[in-house]
Amino acid sequence: MKALVFHGPGQPSWEDVPDPTIQDPTDAIVRVDAVTICGTDLHILGGDVPAVTDGRILGHEAVGTVVEIGPGVRNLAAGDRVLVSCVSACGRCRFCRDGRYGQCVNGGGWILGHLIDGTQAELVRVPFADNSTHRIPSGVSDEQMLMLADILPTSYEVGVLNGCVRPADVVVIIGAGPIGLAAVLGAKLLSPSHIVVVDLVDTRLDAARAFGADIVVNSGRDDVVAIVRDLTDGLGADVTMEAVGIPQTFEQAVELVRPCGHVANLGVHGAPATLHLEDIWIKDLTITTGLVDTYSTPTLIGLVQSGRLDTSPMITHRFTLDQFEEAYDVFGRAGGDGCAEGAAHPEVALTVRYPAFEDRRLRGFRSRGRPLCRLRHCRRGAAADSPVPCGGVCAGQ
Amino acid sequence: MKALVFHGPGQPSWEDVPDPTIQDPTDAIVRVDAVTICGTDLHILGGDVPAVTDGRILGHEAVGTVVEIGPGVRNLAAGDRVLVSCVSACGRCRFCRDGRYGQCVNGGGWILGHLIDGTQAELVRVPFADNSTHRIPSGVSDEQMLMLADILPTSYEVGVLNGCVRPADVVVIIGAGPIGLAAVLGAKLLSPSHIVVVDLVDTRLDAARAFGADIVVNSGRDDVVAIVRDLTDGLGADVTMEAVGIPQTFEQAVELVRPCGHVANLGVHGAPATLHLEDIWIKDLTITTGLVDTYSTPTLIGLVQSGRLDTSPMITHRFTLDQFEEAYDVFGRAGGDGCAEGAAHPEVALTVRYPAFEDRRLRGFRSRGRPLCRLRHCRRGAAADSPVPCGGVCAGQ
Repeated sequence: MKALVFHGPGQPSWEDVPDPTIQDPTDAIVRVDAVTICGTDLHILGGDVPAVTDGRILGHEAVGTVVEIGPGVRNLAAGDRVLVSCVSACGRCRFCRDGRYGQCVNGGGWILGHLIDGTQAELVRVPFADNSTHRIPSGVSDEQMLMLADILPTSYEVGVLNGCVRPADVVVIIGAGPIGLAAVLGAKLLSPSHIVVVDLVDTRLDAARAFGADIVVNSGRDDVVAIVRDLTDGLGADVTMEAVGIPQTFEQAVELVRPCGHVANLGVHGAPATLHLEDIWIKDLTITTGLVDTYSTPTLIGLVQSGRLDTSPMITHRFTLDQFEEAYDVFGRAGGDGCAEGAAHPEVALTVRYPAFEDRRLRGFRSRGRPLCRLRHCRRGAAADSPVPCGGVCAGQ
Repeated sequence: MKALVFHGPGQPSWEDVPDPTIQDPTDAIVRVDAVTICGTDLHILGGDVPAVTDGRILGHEAVGTVVEIGPGVRNLAAGDRVLVSCVSACGRCRFCRDGRYGQCVNGGGWILGHLIDGTQAELVRVPFADNSTHRIPSGVSDEQMLMLADILPTSYEVGVLNGCVRPADVVVIIGAGPIGLAAVLGAKLLSPSHIVVVDLVDTRLDAARAFGADIVVNSGRDDVVAIVRDLTDGLGADVTMEAVGIPQTFEQAVELVRPCGHVANLGVHGAPATLHLEDIWIKDLTITTGLVDTYSTPTLIGLVQSGRLDTSPMITHRFTLDQFEEAYDVFGRAGGDGCAEGAAHPEVALTVRYPAFEDRRLRGFRSRGRPLCRLRHCRRGAAADSPVPCGGVCAGQ
């Protein structure tokens, strides 16, 4: 198959690699139908993530079709269309049992495109497949679903929920890159009174306004501290989110929050920040950091399905898989963080134009069609060789 | 009257000052029966709190007897024995209405011995007296109650509750000064599996063990990181508390906590710390800071009254009011934070040997005695000139 392979900082290559195979009974092999690039991939290509070594296939977000399952997989079958979550979860360790899948200590967490080969390929091996995928419900497009692999749950869990956004709050989001824009979408769900977005690039701020921010501040021109104080009787914002990943913006997030407020860090940082404890020891602040756990993915799927959340504006560019290097170039120029110079391309989706890649296991499957499962309410087809009528995909429903 | 007056860094003076008077209808004047010294007072004398100006009477903790109330006070009467909380609360601002009294924006918060004259005196004016005092229940000694003015609610709210201590947790408390020891008492209420206390002074660590720590670590000799990792399968502590107030110990608290853990800052800091976001952005940490709100004081009073919490070991030295300067000397040598050299004197209580100071307003009152209130269940006496039988102290019960 073809895949986007990391060969050291600044050296991605779209090249031929061996197909992935089942290595563990709980693995699934998924044909990638749509995939996207994350700002974290740019950090990897920049050499910031030394755990990613030469030869690694990048990518940790995909929508695809199951082509093969290991004998330990119970909830999936060949032919199922699934979201491949950025976080894999063993489902059994102390963190997984507490819903903190991002911290899985049993081989899961953020591993795709990091510690094992990822999704920017024609096929991907997904470990712990039952707990690391979500089936795509009817009425939800691949592109809408793709945004739920990482960026939406990250901004919702690590920004909105960790930040404890409540109705009527004043929320300040620093950074209008993809994650900051997704945080705007997430914050809107909790009905804050104001969403203030801060950035250095006007085109990004225009995008923030289009996404739902009612106040945008160019911090290169305007005094963001004065604006937030005026808005909050001098107190500061109820919640601030840092969505850039540099010390200065984190320190600004701490400065802008009110006593008893919340600072939610969303940024991926490569350097320490100064924490002014001499100012904040007395302020009753709560500061949170986090990798997404994806416990909220079912919630977000429900919101998309019911029309309460529209992720489609996140996608501005579409490519075929063989245009991967060009896509990286476009995404890189847009900037992976909220303070980079560049045009406002909030997200780049790479959609495989089906059947750009037709896996042989699906060919046979597709030619046979799928007999209906005999279980009541099941509307799904049964996979060949499945021990249960529909391969377990209907979970008895 | 006599009072301990601040005349600039290093210059406390026990001297004659005018008696306080009612300035606002919600004020009460309280005769101080027992008072203590806080580490914060040492910071003030060290010149670290510029808001405290020449002529200010220090102190923000007391047990005393109400001698006079303003016309707006409803729940107190002359003769009532009360705890004067370190935090005054207007009871009406947005923070007070949310139980965040420490952040009162209407003239309350930590003001005693800071922005207005404090409790290290024979008499003290207590603003917002209804919301800034707690009546002393039967069976609770002055000394036990005195520890609930600041140190116990601070360690319980800002350390134990902000840190979200849960049964079976491994809790690490850095600093075995008074606030660290009080945090041990508070943490024990939540049944952690281990309480690890870290300090540089063995006598303080002995005190920590006596208070209930089951593991003590002299960080000058032993590798605290290795000890905590061994204890937690390499993960780190569930909760760490910083009870010193210097950057190094805060940074250690962040280093020692597990993924998804809580870092509760108790220390009063004078300098910024380095926050290693490059390590912790991915760790799902929650870091809290805080000034005590004293919302937990009724809980703590109930625990003392029921025998579930014994604060008496906090008190090691007793003085009369005219020995104030000597008391400061002893407390200062013991060290106000957990890493100072010195003997293990966890707290210094200064108890007025009644009737060292007899206010004329109490003389008349005491000679008349207190008729019983006529309201059902009320066991309190009625104050002279009170519009309701018991001066409102029984709140109709």
